[in-house]
Amino acid sequence: MYRFNHKDLLGMDQLSVSDINMILDTADSLMEISSRDIKKVPTLRGKSIVNFFYEPSTRTKASFEMAAKRLSADTLSLSATDSSMVKGETLIDTARNLQAMNPDVIILRHSSSGAPHLLARYVDAGVINAGDGMHEHPTQALLDLFTIRKKKGRIKGLKVVIIGDIAHSRVARSDIIGLKKMGAEVTVSGPPTMIPVDAESLGVKVVFDPEKALNNKDVIMMLRIQLERQSEVLFPSLREYSIFFGLNKEIIKRAKKDVIIMHPGPINRGVEITGDLADGPFSVILDQVSNGVAIRMALLYLLIGGERGDNLD
Amino acid sequence: MYRFNHKDLLGMDQLSVSDINMILDTADSLMEISSRDIKKVPTLRGKSIVNFFYEPSTRTKASFEMAAKRLSADTLSLSATDSSMVKGETLIDTARNLQAMNPDVIILRHSSSGAPHLLARYVDAGVINAGDGMHEHPTQALLDLFTIRKKKGRIKGLKVVIIGDIAHSRVARSDIIGLKKMGAEVTVSGPPTMIPVDAESLGVKVVFDPEKALNNKDVIMMLRIQLERQSEVLFPSLREYSIFFGLNKEIIKRAKKDVIIMHPGPINRGVEITGDLADGPFSVILDQVSNGVAIRMALLYLLIGGERGDNLD
Amino acid sequence: MYRFNHKDLLGMDQLSVSDINMILDTADSLMEISSRDIKKVPTLRGKSIVNFFYEPSTRTKASFEMAAKRLSADTLSLSATDSSMVKGETLIDTARNLQAMNPDVIILRHSSSGAPHLLARYVDAGVINAGDGMHEHPTQALLDLFTIRKKKGRIKGLKVVIIGDIAHSRVARSDIIGLKKMGAEVTVSGPPTMIPVDAESLGVKVVFDPEKALNNKDVIMMLRIQLERQSEVLFPSLREYSIFFGLNKEIIKRAKKDVIIMHPGPINRGVEITGDLADGPFSVILDQVSNGVAIRMALLYLLIGGERGDNLD
Repeated sequence: MYRFNHKDLLGMDQLSVSDINMILDTADSLMEISSRDIKKVPTLRGKSIVNFFYEPSTRTKASFEMAAKRLSADTLSLSATDSSMVKGETLIDTARNLQAMNPDVIILRHSSSGAPHLLARYVDAGVINAGDGMHEHPTQALLDLFTIRKKKGRIKGLKVVIIGDIAHSRVARSDIIGLKKMGAEVTVSGPPTMIPVDAESLGVKVVFDPEKALNNKDVIMMLRIQLERQSEVLFPSLREYSIFFGLNKEIIKRAKKDVIIMHPGPINRGVEITGDLADGPFSVILDQVSNGVAIRMALLYLLIGGERGDNLD
Repeated sequence: MYRFNHKDLLGMDQLSVSDINMILDTADSLMEISSRDIKKVPTLRGKSIVNFFYEPSTRTKASFEMAAKRLSADTLSLSATDSSMVKGETLIDTARNLQAMNPDVIILRHSSSGAPHLLARYVDAGVINAGDGMHEHPTQALLDLFTIRKKKGRIKGLKVVIIGDIAHSRVARSDIIGLKKMGAEVTVSGPPTMIPVDAESLGVKVVFDPEKALNNKDVIMMLRIQLERQSEVLFPSLREYSIFFGLNKEIIKRAKKDVIIMHPGPINRGVEITGDLADGPFSVILDQVSNGVAIRMALLYLLIGGERGDNLD
Repeated sequence: MYRFNHKDLLGMDQLSVSDINMILDTADSLMEISSRDIKKVPTLRGKSIVNFFYEPSTRTKASFEMAAKRLSADTLSLSATDSSMVKGETLIDTARNLQAMNPDVIILRHSSSGAPHLLARYVDAGVINAGDGMHEHPTQALLDLFTIRKKKGRIKGLKVVIIGDIAHSRVARSDIIGLKKMGAEVTVSGPPTMIPVDAESLGVKVVFDPEKALNNKDVIMMLRIQLERQSEVLFPSLREYSIFFGLNKEIIKRAKKDVIIMHPGPINRGVEITGDLADGPFSVILDQVSNGVAIRMALLYLLIGGERGDNLD
């Protein structure tokens, strides 16, 4: 009999197909709580959830906080900006100190790849990776898989293309691992400077020309251009990026008639996607946000909601 | 039969006299919760309230947060300072993203006039304007009306003078609209640079000399001088402002014997008001703060507390 | 019959031996809540706790917030950084404004010695000093006493040495007062620039040589070197400080075989204490953190948990 048997959620690479299905099924059953008149169930009453974000975040942090509160857990937000906890203290010491306060789950975003894995080794609390460096962002991948399954009825056999800065994106990395595990066919596209040289070792197809990459696809995932970081370095200009790699009404005709367009947000209108497409009938960008709350509720529930893993059988 | 029938509270200009009476009556009935031993009722359990402040605020934000918690709602605070949600994202996109998480009310403070109105058009959640640019600050006006009614037993027919930077104050603007609607007689006073040229079109009397403006008044509202902003531009010096427009023991004799003195806070002692008056028997400045929590509870209750508007009949 | 009869907790100097015993006993009885599956009791439901930190803090603030939530109180966090409440406003006015919102307890950290005492005079709410300037940090002292009592079974008659910047540490000051009241024998040690000239008037022994100071001790309390503040001024170099005053495997042999090592955190590994000692069998540093949550629960309970003081008889 299957059991969800994890203390932490550190990356898509640690999840089996059964784990992923269990998370999506649980999210499905929790989804309607957010549309009730009273958006709250007592499931996690008396549990303490710590949001620990070393990198600024509004969207992901708000999503986790909403998820925790809808399950009646208590939340505590720590940010590294004003954190004396962090001054002159190693991450391990910080971890042990947090642990001494007996939290049930610590949600960590950190600029160093592997930080959540290190934390997880030193605390009894469950650790959820909310993004670590250029490594993984598993809750984003899970909400993406959840959105695809809800819209398409399945993931297996779908043709998915991911366009943008594949090499430096933790979202891309987690999505690729998850999509491959669930049996999708994944193509990546973008400027050569943004495609990892060993991309094919990840099991994906590389098609540099985005028009060709879009051919006959069921799902298009656009990545966000980090305007504040690398724009000068990796491509000549925003305008040029937009012309060659931005999604627009014309090139989308190459994809299937019932294609869905995804984006992890926040979108740069007119850069990686035109406004009319972002707001148009193919876009499921806002569904991703709603689904994100449900996925995070599911994870909190599965990690600490009862005897680990035998809750829903 | 009267019904409070608003999705949002965007400005005093959208409220009828019946609406205002309903809000004040509701605040009256909720007021005592804050002085109970257990300061909490389950009315808004399972509702999500988002505090979204693009401008810094402690006082107003704390008041809304207290109000929400005393009604058992869950609160989530977003600030634009550390907000990745805001980077490269339009207010409309931010609004849609928030909406996708299904909040019940979004409380918005923003430096642009009209921002809450724009937000309200794009979200199903109720929107409360907590101050938009130099436009309106309706919850301040409502708590001011509430304070006057509690202290004087009525608003209609009272003679009210507002002294300070009328031209650039959203508080003054909302107070004037509210006071006029409720039948008060409003006079404004201040340096000519701080009085709008079309002031009389708002239905108020302009009396530049503050001593004359105080004549026979029931209510004095002092506005805060924004030391950090405009002091150099609009008047020669703080000392001069204080001498000509500051409230002191002498000039207050012009007003009625039972005058009340109001100020939206934080006060600059010795600038717009002397310390002895701020702390003296005529001052209702701290009542305003207490009443503010009740007014915000009333608004949350009326906007999302049940079938809109038929709760209290 | 003994009654805990305080409105505020401002300093160790205001507590009697019976008060301290009552606080530790209460912490003892609340301790197990944090290790329950449902870490929450309804004791302070409907109470409002304001965390007001003028100085940055993660550790202490998180500890108070956890404590409040485990007793079901509502919490509100104000920080002075983004605080309009503070601009142009005296602490007394801020206090009165807070009071007008009817909180039950205000937890204040402030860089000025005596700030909590001032606040306490102007508010009906209970005030807890979470550190004021170089004056006191009583909750740290109470959790230290609690930790000693739990580990050693008693405080009276124990030999305690405190090593570090005694002169500028509010932790040292509160610990000394508390330890002396409870009948411990206190020795202090550190560079002469860090020992107050009138140290002996506090009832402690001064032994400049740390090796000698450690002789036959039951408890070693190391203070944190404030790297960010005074390192250049008070001693030649970190390396030198570490060599002469840092705790290491060798010099600890001078102390008793069952000595315990304490530190208020965050620790500077390799400066005031070596990593192996901080993580070793004598260290109770993480117990201090766990005990801190229980002590803060006890204080909130005793200050506002019922009829003051007669709760537990």
